[in-house]
Amino acid sequence: MELDEVTISRAILASQMETMLDLLEMDVAVVGGGPSGITCAVYCAEMGLKVGLFEKKLSIGGGMWGGGMMFPRIVVQEEAKEVLDRFGIAAAAFEPGYYVARSVESVSKLTAAACTAGAEFFNLITVEDVVVRADGRVSGLVVNWSPVEMAGLHIDPLMVRCRAVVDATGHDATIAHMVARKGGDLPIRGEGFMWAERAEGNILDHTKEVFPGLYVCGMAANAVAGECRMGPIFGGMLLSGRRAAEMVAAALGHQP
Amino acid sequence: MELDEVTISRAILASQMETMLDLLEMDVAVVGGGPSGITCAVYCAEMGLKVGLFEKKLSIGGGMWGGGMMFPRIVVQEEAKEVLDRFGIAAAAFEPGYYVARSVESVSKLTAAACTAGAEFFNLITVEDVVVRADGRVSGLVVNWSPVEMAGLHIDPLMVRCRAVVDATGHDATIAHMVARKGGDLPIRGEGFMWAERAEGNILDHTKEVFPGLYVCGMAANAVAGECRMGPIFGGMLLSGRRAAEMVAAALGHQP
Amino acid sequence: MELDEVTISRAILASQMETMLDLLEMDVAVVGGGPSGITCAVYCAEMGLKVGLFEKKLSIGGGMWGGGMMFPRIVVQEEAKEVLDRFGIAAAAFEPGYYVARSVESVSKLTAAACTAGAEFFNLITVEDVVVRADGRVSGLVVNWSPVEMAGLHIDPLMVRCRAVVDATGHDATIAHMVARKGGDLPIRGEGFMWAERAEGNILDHTKEVFPGLYVCGMAANAVAGECRMGPIFGGMLLSGRRAAEMVAAALGHQP
Amino acid sequence: MELDEVTISRAILASQMETMLDLLEMDVAVVGGGPSGITCAVYCAEMGLKVGLFEKKLSIGGGMWGGGMMFPRIVVQEEAKEVLDRFGIAAAAFEPGYYVARSVESVSKLTAAACTAGAEFFNLITVEDVVVRADGRVSGLVVNWSPVEMAGLHIDPLMVRCRAVVDATGHDATIAHMVARKGGDLPIRGEGFMWAERAEGNILDHTKEVFPGLYVCGMAANAVAGECRMGPIFGGMLLSGRRAAEMVAAALGHQP
Amino acid sequence: MELDEVTISRAILASQMETMLDLLEMDVAVVGGGPSGITCAVYCAEMGLKVGLFEKKLSIGGGMWGGGMMFPRIVVQEEAKEVLDRFGIAAAAFEPGYYVARSVESVSKLTAAACTAGAEFFNLITVEDVVVRADGRVSGLVVNWSPVEMAGLHIDPLMVRCRAVVDATGHDATIAHMVARKGGDLPIRGEGFMWAERAEGNILDHTKEVFPGLYVCGMAANAVAGECRMGPIFGGMLLSGRRAAEMVAAALGHQP
Amino acid sequence: MELDEVTISRAILASQMETMLDLLEMDVAVVGGGPSGITCAVYCAEMGLKVGLFEKKLSIGGGMWGGGMMFPRIVVQEEAKEVLDRFGIAAAAFEPGYYVARSVESVSKLTAAACTAGAEFFNLITVEDVVVRADGRVSGLVVNWSPVEMAGLHIDPLMVRCRAVVDATGHDATIAHMVARKGGDLPIRGEGFMWAERAEGNILDHTKEVFPGLYVCGMAANAVAGECRMGPIFGGMLLSGRRAAEMVAAALGHQP
Amino acid sequence: MELDEVTISRAILASQMETMLDLLEMDVAVVGGGPSGITCAVYCAEMGLKVGLFEKKLSIGGGMWGGGMMFPRIVVQEEAKEVLDRFGIAAAAFEPGYYVARSVESVSKLTAAACTAGAEFFNLITVEDVVVRADGRVSGLVVNWSPVEMAGLHIDPLMVRCRAVVDATGHDATIAHMVARKGGDLPIRGEGFMWAERAEGNILDHTKEVFPGLYVCGMAANAVAGECRMGPIFGGMLLSGRRAAEMVAAALGHQP
Amino acid sequence: MELDEVTISRAILASQMETMLDLLEMDVAVVGGGPSGITCAVYCAEMGLKVGLFEKKLSIGGGMWGGGMMFPRIVVQEEAKEVLDRFGIAAAAFEPGYYVARSVESVSKLTAAACTAGAEFFNLITVEDVVVRADGRVSGLVVNWSPVEMAGLHIDPLMVRCRAVVDATGHDATIAHMVARKGGDLPIRGEGFMWAERAEGNILDHTKEVFPGLYVCGMAANAVAGECRMGPIFGGMLLSGRRAAEMVAAALGHQP
Repeated sequence: MELDEVTISRAILASQMETMLDLLEMDVAVVGGGPSGITCAVYCAEMGLKVGLFEKKLSIGGGMWGGGMMFPRIVVQEEAKEVLDRFGIAAAAFEPGYYVARSVESVSKLTAAACTAGAEFFNLITVEDVVVRADGRVSGLVVNWSPVEMAGLHIDPLMVRCRAVVDATGHDATIAHMVARKGGDLPIRGEGFMWAERAEGNILDHTKEVFPGLYVCGMAANAVAGECRMGPIFGGMLLSGRRAAEMVAAALGHQP
Repeated sequence: MELDEVTISRAILASQMETMLDLLEMDVAVVGGGPSGITCAVYCAEMGLKVGLFEKKLSIGGGMWGGGMMFPRIVVQEEAKEVLDRFGIAAAAFEPGYYVARSVESVSKLTAAACTAGAEFFNLITVEDVVVRADGRVSGLVVNWSPVEMAGLHIDPLMVRCRAVVDATGHDATIAHMVARKGGDLPIRGEGFMWAERAEGNILDHTKEVFPGLYVCGMAANAVAGECRMGPIFGGMLLSGRRAAEMVAAALGHQP
Repeated sequence: MELDEVTISRAILASQMETMLDLLEMDVAVVGGGPSGITCAVYCAEMGLKVGLFEKKLSIGGGMWGGGMMFPRIVVQEEAKEVLDRFGIAAAAFEPGYYVARSVESVSKLTAAACTAGAEFFNLITVEDVVVRADGRVSGLVVNWSPVEMAGLHIDPLMVRCRAVVDATGHDATIAHMVARKGGDLPIRGEGFMWAERAEGNILDHTKEVFPGLYVCGMAANAVAGECRMGPIFGGMLLSGRRAAEMVAAALGHQP
Repeated sequence: MELDEVTISRAILASQMETMLDLLEMDVAVVGGGPSGITCAVYCAEMGLKVGLFEKKLSIGGGMWGGGMMFPRIVVQEEAKEVLDRFGIAAAAFEPGYYVARSVESVSKLTAAACTAGAEFFNLITVEDVVVRADGRVSGLVVNWSPVEMAGLHIDPLMVRCRAVVDATGHDATIAHMVARKGGDLPIRGEGFMWAERAEGNILDHTKEVFPGLYVCGMAANAVAGECRMGPIFGGMLLSGRRAAEMVAAALGHQP
Repeated sequence: MELDEVTISRAILASQMETMLDLLEMDVAVVGGGPSGITCAVYCAEMGLKVGLFEKKLSIGGGMWGGGMMFPRIVVQEEAKEVLDRFGIAAAAFEPGYYVARSVESVSKLTAAACTAGAEFFNLITVEDVVVRADGRVSGLVVNWSPVEMAGLHIDPLMVRCRAVVDATGHDATIAHMVARKGGDLPIRGEGFMWAERAEGNILDHTKEVFPGLYVCGMAANAVAGECRMGPIFGGMLLSGRRAAEMVAAALGHQP
Repeated sequence: MELDEVTISRAILASQMETMLDLLEMDVAVVGGGPSGITCAVYCAEMGLKVGLFEKKLSIGGGMWGGGMMFPRIVVQEEAKEVLDRFGIAAAAFEPGYYVARSVESVSKLTAAACTAGAEFFNLITVEDVVVRADGRVSGLVVNWSPVEMAGLHIDPLMVRCRAVVDATGHDATIAHMVARKGGDLPIRGEGFMWAERAEGNILDHTKEVFPGLYVCGMAANAVAGECRMGPIFGGMLLSGRRAAEMVAAALGHQP
Repeated sequence: MELDEVTISRAILASQMETMLDLLEMDVAVVGGGPSGITCAVYCAEMGLKVGLFEKKLSIGGGMWGGGMMFPRIVVQEEAKEVLDRFGIAAAAFEPGYYVARSVESVSKLTAAACTAGAEFFNLITVEDVVVRADGRVSGLVVNWSPVEMAGLHIDPLMVRCRAVVDATGHDATIAHMVARKGGDLPIRGEGFMWAERAEGNILDHTKEVFPGLYVCGMAANAVAGECRMGPIFGGMLLSGRRAAEMVAAALGHQP
Repeated sequence: MELDEVTISRAILASQMETMLDLLEMDVAVVGGGPSGITCAVYCAEMGLKVGLFEKKLSIGGGMWGGGMMFPRIVVQEEAKEVLDRFGIAAAAFEPGYYVARSVESVSKLTAAACTAGAEFFNLITVEDVVVRADGRVSGLVVNWSPVEMAGLHIDPLMVRCRAVVDATGHDATIAHMVARKGGDLPIRGEGFMWAERAEGNILDHTKEVFPGLYVCGMAANAVAGECRMGPIFGGMLLSGRRAAEMVAAALGHQP
């Protein structure tokens, strides 16, 4: 068989366009492809929700790729060990209660699981704004190609509709800030000092619906709540992502 | 149990340092974390070789993340379908002989497989030079942190030893050019026009040892040979990575 | 009727995708949206050819917008006055044989005419390479989003097929240089001194097929031929664009 | 006839200088060459007003060139369909009440119509400030070459006089902010969430004289009023531009 | 003996890793490698404290290298002459009470003395945050490689524990601002006019513990107190560094 | 009398436009506003030639403003002392044969003299190319606004006609290189080592017509001839500028 | 006589160093080398004051070089015509009361006059701060090389003493803002709209001592007072510079 | 005693100016402040030569600060251990024949020794060119402030005279390239692969006078000779610097 350049182009365009048109309406839009966002997407998809994850960078994985100070290892505590196991991520016991995993393996296996579960990834996409209509709920996202912003161009975005948005954008809590800046009733406290113990202990409490239709998880949850930072320990990230998925599923009437 | 910041730091430092000291000597050093490099690393590791993959970017995956023109889909032809299947990457038939896969799923599952097989990934590492001693073979790499170069600093590198180097750096064929520029007998022909059929058909022939101890695979193989380009069809990349692994293993006396 | 954000998105995506899939195969691909390229596209479309124009910038019009030294006026000589008239561009007689027109009006009316005639414009698209297969003809283009390059990303392109390519990229003669650099038999002479009289007199002779399937027009024609420069007099540009259209149409068996 | 370089230069300089001296005093100065600004200029000129449009970029058209997410299509709803028809812009019905047009065609035909009607375009011009004298009205603009600012130079501007200014600078509402920042009584509310229905419905109410001599239209009108955003649907832009023209004409004693 | 590249690498990695693991817990962390910071480190080390100095630049010495206006000389007044003498820095009497020294000699001899005394230098390290746990004291630093920030990457930091932190970051008073910004009770007054006499006279009074566990010295002390600037006279810097060392030692129960 | 903004604008536009139209044809075009170029312009104008000087920067004076290593003093030897005296520039004797002058005074008095003599200055103008017609002589310049190039825009230039061009662009010898690059018979030797004695001694020999219609003076003369460099001694510059003026005047039939 | 490189260097170093040491103490320090600053320096020097002018750019002249919108002409009204005449600057009458001069001639002749009168120019010098001691007066400047700041280096400044400082830094009113920011009682109103008539009429009233030892003139005077802008009409600048000189001279006990 | 700002300034200016005037003529000019250059300067000064070291950066020490891959340790082999001992640099034995030292301590103690020995350091100075007069020897340097180049300014340099120049600029071999580029008979071979054993073994043979008056040492010696690279082992650097000092001293008639 002869390989034809036009058929290659058509295959890519037609397949992705079908996905884009289909995902103009979805159940959950997760913003941010770091550890908490991917984890949230895995569990949402596994519970049968139609989920799209929007990441502004080319690659999925966020800050987890770099481990701590570019040493590509992450630490996970006892409580979250089961999540690593669940996705087949090898973790070596260090001191009692501390496990060390490879950051590259952690990112790739989480992402692989999300793909298998049916989550759809949209990389190189920036979220510019949210849709809020008469019911006062976040009911959609305003999206654009990231390179448009990187190149300093001014080009109109497109819109997608969703029943829930999860802000998993990390320290920046981008979506929450967007809502707060435009007048939504969403107080943001800012990030506290480094205190791993406390930050990990409280993150699940901070994982919640902070504005109608908008949930926060991972560091975005802590940033909104004015909670402490925790450094390269990722157990709370994973558990927070799972918790957000469970809350969204419950709100949308899905069972885990 | 109380989480302690210093223990987290120690866990990361001690674990990664052990790996770094261990990998100062390895069997195969793969340079470049795109599709052909990861595939090569998977098969090398599965055949029992001690393999390290060096990638200058923060994330692993290279140009595959972006699909074609940012539409995150890739095309694979019939001959390479089995490689996708082998790693559990879902592929939909488009026209006879053409399969379409998600680029995010393809990257993450290939990488996950390499981690499982035992390949070690060193991201954010730039290869500055190669070690060539009295035997005239490439017998090591001269490496540095990528951010050192990105920040415009001048800082000395470190060296690692290996029995074979695989140049999987894509169009740039970085390692091959390095050897050629310093006087190695390694003619480089440069890249040809776009002609997918021909490029895919010849890539396995171009996958070979081009200088004692140095193998080329993927687009680097075609670039050295002056072969045509092929665009977002990735079957040849995967097969070339596998072929390079087989050649290295044979040369080092390992059986597949 | 209620306006729905998702319907707006779907309308844009579906309409443009249909156009993109349709234009994966076309008769003529014009590269460069300056005066000669637009003019070529107008006449090609009017003669019934399926024509797509690829422009790397966001806007169509190229160097004509700025007139001479940012004074937005252009000059056209007697021979080309009819082209201005043909498109309804007002031109005031200055001295005998010299007409002055507004640059904004000239650009917009040329572009409007091309749209009316049925030419399809692809702005923000960079041509990265050409397709040359066994017959040794330029038979397609390798294209990508311009912001991908502007943002310094490495992402695979897509390919389109066409029966003829017109290089209307101005001084740079981008496509001709691409072919020459990869070994095509296409000597490029470089640009001469400024000598408007001679440059305008010879441009039609330089407008021709310079490699199988590749035509040059406008300043690209003069640059390939080593001809002189001419400054902000645009008659030759317009006539050269028209001439290229006629040559392509003849070669493809269309009648004017 | 021999083409002479000096005559070409003289033709451009003399013609444009005559225009510049003539337009030092005009009826209406429109700032911003996006869809609402061009539309406003068309109607002003057709009603006999002496109108100049100032655009800081090299090309006219603003954000309309890029359609939605670089897919060069725009959507227009039923109410504004007549404006497209009026300027000969082809529009295909999508779903009931939604029409899709090519962005390149829309920009070029609007601009062409404005030229035909007699509006004068000044591209590459930045408005640095406004003239407000003893009567407390905006009665002129302080203008400079955009490249002066782009190159980081400090060079004095020149001034033009006008009877009315229309701020059509889009989201930034540049002129309105200028007046507010210097103490003019002009509260600016900032932009709201995305809600196309509401934004399109209210834009004509927001199109008005917001300070003596200063009118706002298009997204600038919505931004001053704190109205929602609407994305790549352009009906409101066109109608708002026309409405601003009518209000200015009425205020200056011209009949439509 | 044959020199082996891998042994060289191993020697560097193993030695420095041992130091890094050892210094995860220290008595005093000095932030900033300018004159006051180095002096503080010298005296701390001489009094038997385990001290690490963190400097974000590649070289140690800060603003002292450049002397005054790039004329590499510094001035020291009578009171501080003994500090120069103590470290063997040659100083010429200028007018009564004023001594002039070479800036390169001053930097290198201070640094050499600190090394001899046993202080450990960590260059190219940025302090991103501080650790504050339940006792409300600054009890650690959050550190990262400077090139990570210089390259615009987002990578998690590591943490070190210490019993006291000395902010010797100069005008910026980086650590003090960090604490103040996150809600610590630490009012910062900002820098006053230039008045060398007063600034030098008061600096020892401003050298103190400004927050539990956090001391300020050098220009950071004056900046926090709203004191005047002093220019290239360095006596106060040296004395302030020594004073901070004495205060820390006393607090930690060490004798000078 | 009331000051009117529009009259101010009109005064500037009308006056300068008159000058620009008048200078579209001139006797001598001097390129480069450093010491040799200004001196050449002074003498040309004093001998009755119609002379325009084109300088790409905003200010006139070139490298002379900075003296030596930013110490704003220049040195002039005995032979050129009379030129300083001629223009009223104060010069103090240093050692026998060496005079020291203020660089600011030197620049401003030379420029003032050129203005008085009637030379016309065009600052912020870049020379992009030269006009060479059938007679093979440089007979004009192709000019553009410098900020156009600084801002990275592509805008057509305008052309001016002249009977002689003087390249006074310093080390770069811009115009000479332009002619050489486009095939003119004009060998350029490149700059030699620093040897002030020799460089100053030979500069008048190198000041000459190097191509029909093109003269070189100042460092451009030495650069074309492959002569040595001389540093911040300016006597040769001034004498070379005067010599070029005399040669041009003689060629054009003017008497000193 | 043989030219010697070392003698050239010594002549420059020794001469300028003598000036620098001498000017460490002066009567008046003028900051900013635009039209008002130069004019102030001329008159100060002519009245026998020891005056130094500090300009951060390489060239003296400021915004005057560029005329209006790069058309190098300036306008001066009747009242200031005598200042032009005084310095030999040719000015053509345009309409009654409006004179037009060349900007290059204006800058160079003003500067030349200041040199002749004995003012000392320090170009490439940035003023970083002011000296204020116990008497609460501005009694000196804190200066540095501009390239130090341009290169992003941190290097200590030097200090000069003076009896009065004139802020002639234009729109930015740099020195006044410096004093205000550090707590000096110096309210700054900010710049008003463009209104040439009013701005020119009031500038002499705004020219005054705004803080003990600190005078403002030119646009800095208007900016501090919240006065309107005036565009490229320079009469007020010149008169304000002269007025500031007179006020300083009176305060310091000198007679005009 | 009261501290006076002007006295501080005068002390710095007067002291450094005296040094600058004195060093306009010296015995040896060392270019480059890395390990080989500093070592060369130490030994030259100890042998009684008048030596100046020119370093383009703000700090002295070059690439040694960063150790290997930012781990601030260096390795020195047996033969060079005595040099470390000589300067009091602590070195721990690693494996037989390998010693590890702290990079910060190594830099600061070498520099301190050079200061004590009487070498004069000129930091922030760029060497632009060399002086070569009739005798064909390098007999001086052409120097400028580094920030002048960093800020993109064009300002004339000054010149210093010396009897010998040592190129210690590392890989770039800046001075050797300068001489070669301007036609000196000085073939440069370029750098080889990494091979520490060979590079360290041959460096003393490559340390020599490569052009009349010009010596090379350190990596510059190896780069000129086409020798291999060696990575972060510094023994050869130190020995090469000492060797160059001995050769220069012998040539100038000094005894070690």
